[in-house]
Amino acid sequence: MSARAAEGAPPNPVTPRGEIVPTVPPAEKAADAVNVTALLERGRTLATPVLRAAVERLAPPMDTVAAYHFGWIDAAGNQAAGDGGKAVRPALAVMSAEAAGADPEVGVPGAVAVELVHNFSLLHDDLMDGDEQRRHRDTVWKVHGPAQAILVGDALFALANEVLLELGTVEAGRATRRLTTASRALIDGQAQDISYEHRERVTVDECLEMEGNKTGALLACACSIGAVLGGADDRTADALERYGYHLGLAFQAVDDLLGIWGDPESTGKQTWSDLRQRKKSLPVVAALAAGGPASEKLGAILAADAKTADLRPADFEDFSEEEFASRAALIEEAGGRTWTADEARRQHAIAVRALDEVRMPTRVREQFVALADFVVVRTR
Amino acid sequence: MSARAAEGAPPNPVTPRGEIVPTVPPAEKAADAVNVTALLERGRTLATPVLRAAVERLAPPMDTVAAYHFGWIDAAGNQAAGDGGKAVRPALAVMSAEAAGADPEVGVPGAVAVELVHNFSLLHDDLMDGDEQRRHRDTVWKVHGPAQAILVGDALFALANEVLLELGTVEAGRATRRLTTASRALIDGQAQDISYEHRERVTVDECLEMEGNKTGALLACACSIGAVLGGADDRTADALERYGYHLGLAFQAVDDLLGIWGDPESTGKQTWSDLRQRKKSLPVVAALAAGGPASEKLGAILAADAKTADLRPADFEDFSEEEFASRAALIEEAGGRTWTADEARRQHAIAVRALDEVRMPTRVREQFVALADFVVVRTR
Repeated sequence: MSARAAEGAPPNPVTPRGEIVPTVPPAEKAADAVNVTALLERGRTLATPVLRAAVERLAPPMDTVAAYHFGWIDAAGNQAAGDGGKAVRPALAVMSAEAAGADPEVGVPGAVAVELVHNFSLLHDDLMDGDEQRRHRDTVWKVHGPAQAILVGDALFALANEVLLELGTVEAGRATRRLTTASRALIDGQAQDISYEHRERVTVDECLEMEGNKTGALLACACSIGAVLGGADDRTADALERYGYHLGLAFQAVDDLLGIWGDPESTGKQTWSDLRQRKKSLPVVAALAAGGPASEKLGAILAADAKTADLRPADFEDFSEEEFASRAALIEEAGGRTWTADEARRQHAIAVRALDEVRMPTRVREQFVALADFVVVRTR
Repeated sequence: MSARAAEGAPPNPVTPRGEIVPTVPPAEKAADAVNVTALLERGRTLATPVLRAAVERLAPPMDTVAAYHFGWIDAAGNQAAGDGGKAVRPALAVMSAEAAGADPEVGVPGAVAVELVHNFSLLHDDLMDGDEQRRHRDTVWKVHGPAQAILVGDALFALANEVLLELGTVEAGRATRRLTTASRALIDGQAQDISYEHRERVTVDECLEMEGNKTGALLACACSIGAVLGGADDRTADALERYGYHLGLAFQAVDDLLGIWGDPESTGKQTWSDLRQRKKSLPVVAALAAGGPASEKLGAILAADAKTADLRPADFEDFSEEEFASRAALIEEAGGRTWTADEARRQHAIAVRALDEVRMPTRVREQFVALADFVVVRTR
């Protein structure tokens, strides 16, 4: 744990609907010219048709269940607008190809493979965690049952490898290997996440390791996979992965802030979502590690929870809004909110520095910087 | 459906503890000299240390859960004798390398990868199907909970690709592609299996397609993967896959016979296991398709089940042994048992013929023939 958290920085004013990490590092002003919305839209536009074609290969009823998960149809089977999320990963995979001097299209199979692995993990994690809602909709296991959630998750995972390997190139083999490493980390991270739920204390380092596995590894892969498909060497791919890994940690720190102080209308989650789910997220573990009266009071409350309550989120449903608000205030008072916002900025800075290790067109570098800026100032 | 089933062959004498498919085709007497037990033992001996080392890479508690699944430890965590099953797949993968003129060791990463995929599917299928016992022991989801069954299944699947791709060769990429195709088929087969449980009627062709996906595809991959790692061309690999696919169908036909008439002490399953689970296995669908009084009576009974009972195996627990025995007798009377035994022999013959398309050392060919013979006469 860094010295900053131990210092117990003064609490932020409570601004539950304000920006979470408002300060973009001033050294990167050049990136202001990049239109991040257009960048995300380009990734989505290039990847979605290929993703849909891949999903259509699944045997019924898995194709329908997957289409529901991706938001392409509703529970009744009717066409839907389709909120596929922020699409940060496809955008990165396409930019990654350009970083290696290849056309953006070269990154598309990588973008699709990464999206498939990401969604495989969402399907399984939602079931394991008992999460009933995602992106404002009932989760797959709620609508189609646990067996379909398992099965379609498996199918998407297999499809991810298939989409890459059917390219039949040496580069595709290298890309699949990196995707496999990321997938293993993702699964390790979920294993850690589950085991931490049953523990009273988790250190900040353990939490960062878990978040690096759950979020950093696949974002890292998104950042290297296009370059690998475009023929980049391992040194370049590794540097791009370092950018992506730390971007992932910044992304997750912001997610952890949004999980407590985010606006439910933006996030699509319940108020105090992570507190309801008893998540040992960064603000919580940083607050517990900080010491001082608020930290100790929080520790006593969570220890009492662990003794008196069962370990399922449902047991927290009886808690009032005021109870969660008072816990959130304690976390903030102990410095957990400030520490996490600082951590997001710190990881953002490490990510951007990793870009210096790669020779890439200036325009592409600016795009990577702009995307990193976007990730830390987002509100959903 | 073939004409043979429609003919309604006369029922076999009821020999529930006798051999299931006793007739080995006489043309293959040369294979008698091969010691199949030694062949299986060699595959197991070569593959197990590499498999164990791979599983040890999993983050806790997944390594322990996987070790329990493989039978290396008991539920309390103590060392166990470890009944890893018949080990037909590792034996085939090792022989497959020899078919391409390579050393048996060359097939080992393929053997391990195939075993990992097979066990990934067991972990997930047991949970989806609600099966509480496998190989005389409680299944993983019963002992360690559904989340660990999902998670460790995912981890084994990822590990399968990792074990191959870390070889870093072009051949490993080709092998992984074949494994991915087989994995997708496996998942399709499980999707079909689940959907058939909810249907009153399944055709013989649908059943064979499902069994080809669930059993044929991965056995096919086991038969080609060693050869591919040993540098075989696609024509050779495809022919070996045809052998394996039809061997898989023969294997499954025997499994379907054992699922009804097998000796529980050998199979490790309950008496009338597949009837308890309402499985639309080959003897059942063949009996239903055969026509005649016994077929019609069986059809009426199963239709009544579908109307009055829910669709979970638990609903059948109240049925008496006599009820199952009388259903089994009806299936046999309608010709379902004879048809399935004939089908096992027919698939065995197709498998052996596929070997003619591959130039391989005579000794290796004899081993493939002997293994095919073994598969159709086994009693567990």
